[in-house]
Amino acid sequence: MRFIVADWGTTRFRAYLIESEMVLDEVSSGEGVSALKPGQHRDVFMRHGGRWLEAEPNAPVLLVGMVGSREGWVMAPYASCPAGPAEIAKAMIPVDLGNGRRAHIVPGLFCEPAPGASDVMRGEETLALGSGVADGLVCAPGTHPKWIEMRDGRIERFATYMTGEMYALLREHSMIGRPATEPEDPKGFDLGLDAAERNNGKKGERAGLLHLLFGARAAVVSGRMETGLLGPYLSGLLTGDEINGALSQFRRPSKVTILADAPRADLYVRALARHGIATEVKASRNALIAGLARIVRHVPAN
Amino acid sequence: MRFIVADWGTTRFRAYLIESEMVLDEVSSGEGVSALKPGQHRDVFMRHGGRWLEAEPNAPVLLVGMVGSREGWVMAPYASCPAGPAEIAKAMIPVDLGNGRRAHIVPGLFCEPAPGASDVMRGEETLALGSGVADGLVCAPGTHPKWIEMRDGRIERFATYMTGEMYALLREHSMIGRPATEPEDPKGFDLGLDAAERNNGKKGERAGLLHLLFGARAAVVSGRMETGLLGPYLSGLLTGDEINGALSQFRRPSKVTILADAPRADLYVRALARHGIATEVKASRNALIAGLARIVRHVPAN
Repeated sequence: MRFIVADWGTTRFRAYLIESEMVLDEVSSGEGVSALKPGQHRDVFMRHGGRWLEAEPNAPVLLVGMVGSREGWVMAPYASCPAGPAEIAKAMIPVDLGNGRRAHIVPGLFCEPAPGASDVMRGEETLALGSGVADGLVCAPGTHPKWIEMRDGRIERFATYMTGEMYALLREHSMIGRPATEPEDPKGFDLGLDAAERNNGKKGERAGLLHLLFGARAAVVSGRMETGLLGPYLSGLLTGDEINGALSQFRRPSKVTILADAPRADLYVRALARHGIATEVKASRNALIAGLARIVRHVPAN
Repeated sequence: MRFIVADWGTTRFRAYLIESEMVLDEVSSGEGVSALKPGQHRDVFMRHGGRWLEAEPNAPVLLVGMVGSREGWVMAPYASCPAGPAEIAKAMIPVDLGNGRRAHIVPGLFCEPAPGASDVMRGEETLALGSGVADGLVCAPGTHPKWIEMRDGRIERFATYMTGEMYALLREHSMIGRPATEPEDPKGFDLGLDAAERNNGKKGERAGLLHLLFGARAAVVSGRMETGLLGPYLSGLLTGDEINGALSQFRRPSKVTILADAPRADLYVRALARHGIATEVKASRNALIAGLARIVRHVPAN
């Protein structure tokens, strides 16, 4: 079965012509949703994907990612957890491509990690469905990393951490990260993981992330930390604290499947190894396409 | 005994002529250390305080705050905890005012909150010595709040949190705080304290601050939180997480003395009341002057 998809995020537009899970053709551009005004989305899609629509008159079309957010083409309301391919496909929102063709926007997911609390994702639900994990814990690193619990091939619940955005805030705008210099000394990452252990909640250890972050500045201004260590240190501390939280929120797994490319995935592999947890790494593009292939089976005939 | 002091921080210069703990005269300006170049400090001090030096030829002169940092007049190396007025006075660094007069820069303090970890303060040591607390826990809120354990009238150890700076980062530069609107709904502060309870380390509760922060965004984009609640919510969450950490790091006290002025102090009073902890509030200016009065007794004759 052939189908056409666009992975349409905040900063990038990427479209694929797919047969089963094989990419036959692809195109990408910088026309992410943050670069577009209302009314421009159809033209962008047709310019890149129009030739596929002509060549494949019966191929379903899926759009995934921030294209379904308030700032996207059409707001696709969040579906609720637990959700599998069928529930997600049922909540898709159609948009008109002209000539009787429609595209279907994959909705994001909402879950309630605690009574009254909220969490959302938009795009990672598709990665998780394509992770190959039917029962277990999946981690999708990024600006806002997601930890996703799979059960019976559906997304049971998930938790998001602002790790990547926090790292950028600290490096670009904060007194804490400002003294960092290059070249970076990668040993800082492990020192940051060490520091995160002081906030793991076990044995009464609960120093507080806000304290441990200030400690990085204190170590630099008191001459105890070389400034080349500081960037990796902050990365290790934040990643370690994310993992502390995830291992507390989800039943501690024997294995975590990480959906990321090499340099970032390697950091999670190292950090989880310290907890004695095995890891399996899958490229996020492959997971995305596999997830779309699971969802597309539930798309109504055009 | 009369003495002359300058509370010389990053953004403000404030000088006082003091008799015992009474302010006889005062002056302030925007000439904080971040506004000055090397070599300008003496002129600034003499312009504001020169008339006091003439009128009080025997009055000792103390300078406190970031004036002793690397970016200040002269770097005054940190003294180490535990430290009381005598140890701090002994570590003061003299600077020349001309005509045979000297000023003494009060050093900051260094402590090691855990083996290999670091913390520093510069200015708050003087507040703590003037808190009136000989044995107990003192909190000095601010951009980087300090929790300070006093024992036998000396500073035993302390822990800094980047709460205030983090709030500003989230409001000014982050996706998390950007949707916040005014007028603010102060009920958000208590909702943020509720959320912080999910990260208190007790009963296995350890959601992670990075998760709880993202949850604020998730609540807004999913329509579960009014944007007027968001600013106070983030403030409550960060303050609550700071308090969780401090109550874990220090022996849980029956009372905390808060060195701050009304609006900020009130937030700590509310947050600590939820933990069943009594509070006493003292104005930070009074604490500063009382602390300087304790230190000045140990200043060598000019």
